Amino acid sequence: MKYQHNFNPTISDDDVFGEIVKEREFIGYYNLAFADTSEYKKYASQVKQQNIVVIGIGGSTLGTYAIYKFLKHSKDLTKKLYFLETTDPIDIKSKVKNLDLGDTLFIVISKSGTTIETVAIFKYINSLIKCDKDNTLVITESDSKLNEYAVANNIKSFEIPKNVGGRFSVFSAVGLVPLAIVGIDIDELLGGAKSVYDSFFSKGDSYERVLKKSRFFVEYKNSFNINVVFSYSSRLEGFNKWYIQLWGESLGKVDINATRQGLTPIGIIGPIDQHSFLQLIVEGRRDKTVTVIKVNDFQNNLKIPNIDLKGLEELNYINDIEFSYLINKQADATIESINNLEDIPCDVMTIDGVSERSIASLMYEYEFLTSVCAKFMYINAYDQPGVEAGKIILKQKLKK
Amino acid sequence: MKYQHNFNPTISDDDVFGEIVKEREFIGYYNLAFADTSEYKKYASQVKQQNIVVIGIGGSTLGTYAIYKFLKHSKDLTKKLYFLETTDPIDIKSKVKNLDLGDTLFIVISKSGTTIETVAIFKYINSLIKCDKDNTLVITESDSKLNEYAVANNIKSFEIPKNVGGRFSVFSAVGLVPLAIVGIDIDELLGGAKSVYDSFFSKGDSYERVLKKSRFFVEYKNSFNINVVFSYSSRLEGFNKWYIQLWGESLGKVDINATRQGLTPIGIIGPIDQHSFLQLIVEGRRDKTVTVIKVNDFQNNLKIPNIDLKGLEELNYINDIEFSYLINKQADATIESINNLEDIPCDVMTIDGVSERSIASLMYEYEFLTSVCAKFMYINAYDQPGVEAGKIILKQKLKK
Repeated sequence: MKYQHNFNPTISDDDVFGEIVKEREFIGYYNLAFADTSEYKKYASQVKQQNIVVIGIGGSTLGTYAIYKFLKHSKDLTKKLYFLETTDPIDIKSKVKNLDLGDTLFIVISKSGTTIETVAIFKYINSLIKCDKDNTLVITESDSKLNEYAVANNIKSFEIPKNVGGRFSVFSAVGLVPLAIVGIDIDELLGGAKSVYDSFFSKGDSYERVLKKSRFFVEYKNSFNINVVFSYSSRLEGFNKWYIQLWGESLGKVDINATRQGLTPIGIIGPIDQHSFLQLIVEGRRDKTVTVIKVNDFQNNLKIPNIDLKGLEELNYINDIEFSYLINKQADATIESINNLEDIPCDVMTIDGVSERSIASLMYEYEFLTSVCAKFMYINAYDQPGVEAGKIILKQKLKK
Repeated sequence: MKYQHNFNPTISDDDVFGEIVKEREFIGYYNLAFADTSEYKKYASQVKQQNIVVIGIGGSTLGTYAIYKFLKHSKDLTKKLYFLETTDPIDIKSKVKNLDLGDTLFIVISKSGTTIETVAIFKYINSLIKCDKDNTLVITESDSKLNEYAVANNIKSFEIPKNVGGRFSVFSAVGLVPLAIVGIDIDELLGGAKSVYDSFFSKGDSYERVLKKSRFFVEYKNSFNINVVFSYSSRLEGFNKWYIQLWGESLGKVDINATRQGLTPIGIIGPIDQHSFLQLIVEGRRDKTVTVIKVNDFQNNLKIPNIDLKGLEELNYINDIEFSYLINKQADATIESINNLEDIPCDVMTIDGVSERSIASLMYEYEFLTSVCAKFMYINAYDQPGVEAGKIILKQKLKK
């Protein structure tokens, strides 16, 4: 018997691993963990301004915001970081109003260098204060128009490598430079990323987690087309937003068989949304997987005091409990109530603490997870043809 | 021929309308539009403190936050509003650290009166400053333990009617009292709600929109199990969160035929997420409807200045454009790129401006939409049995 076929049978774990090993040669984010940070730190150390404003959108801000939001109240940071990322005039005006512009460094970030919204906001800033080499930094591709602007004005610029996509760029200059300036230890960040890299490529824990999970997500994608990340720390709100962008934009694609793919990301905050969204998970349609993210050690011993409120004595059993204990028990109660149902796919990731290493390893592992899911789905995780049509229409509308 | 059946054929628009008319008699939120606000305003006018802190979770805060976030930079508000709503110790500590506690009014809101998280945070506040009738207000059900606490301590309390669910309570004392205190015109809010009420019950525009949309959502729920709200103003971020709670918790239910129902809400911010999430909408699986929300008049003439940046001359066509024009053209480009595909259900709601009436009518119409969807789905929009199991498990864990 002769036999020919052009099926795509489910790809094996080893095949996927082989594809990722190959891809590592030309997709840039895999190597960011090993970047030389000395130039970033040198630049950061001489910044005089107290306020650091990143002007950028999407991939140029979300990862940086995620890390900053997670760490800012647990570190002694020397400077403040702000983001100008929307064209909403009320938002721009209110954010700029509270800034001491004379004591502000503006970091303009755009991979293509011609992002309309970013340039629009930067022009507005130029009308308020002179932007020059003393208060402006540019982060962009080496041959972009924005880089031409930097060169023409003798403004320092850092490069975004061509093979690092915006949503995978947090461990490039895009994230590391602003974070280094405000006092976050970027070598520790890369240390966290490296630990994931090593674990994945030596087929350790990260490999096991990522392969198992992505295979499940893709094999059951027709039943469970929604992936809920249930974060048990309000400080992970930025991470949730970053994850939504990464997941949505990378996996919402047409595959090689011209079939629409896509897993829909949802990010919620545990201690708040277990009072509401949990209802939909528990009683609603079985179309969701749930990933609970816990923080093992909040490094914070804030306690519910031993106070007796008249009328509310029945709640005295919460006295003397630490809030970090309470929030983790809330997470455990949610996990237990989901697992008791036995028909909702649920996994739990517990990160060590509120540190650079913890957040970086979580984020880097999610980048790997995204790449591996894309391999199982036979799609390209790194392009975004679907957002281009809107950009062209917008340009036409504005040029009219 | 004799014929018997117990099918649920698709319910007619008239039947649904009849059900809503009936329900109006015992579901409390329908009547909130006609509440007497004089007591709220009287209380608000004598508040001396500059900082107003709402301690509450979910339905006790999200609606208030949505309205405050939408309006705060466009009104001359006299006081500042904060929310303590999470048990994350880092979050609590950082928020409290920046408050002048001596110049703060604490509003403790809990419908049941025994929400663990709310009481925990309030106990913590009690360890920092004496809470008494001069700096504390309670909003709860009339026979709750929290009300007992208020009575025992001679603290003023406002009532949440028993037949108004937390997520439908924004136009009760829950939302109106804090908003009145900071200087928002609560009669204008109710004016907006009333206009929706009148329009719906006289079968005007609101009725047409709500019935058409909810019928479509429910009839096609098996294909389109996700509803995306794409808000073209960063100031609608709070609205998005409120919508997610309202939609998820009200519609994630088991119906009278023991079938799991539920439509999954997603809220995104247009000018940012059209660079990312739009990819998933455009190229991903056809499992989403899209509702674009625009603001017709931002009442803000912030302009992109006529500035020529060397190297970036190709973008000079955006010079002299107002940001409000840009953001609305971004919305139009997104709508056009979605409609060009012809297979993504999409509707556009344009609210008039940044005013009390606009946001209140948007929110109230969403409450009606939720109630009507529930009727089409044969479920109870107003209970939440699915979150109770987790609460019981948590209590057991904490009592151990």
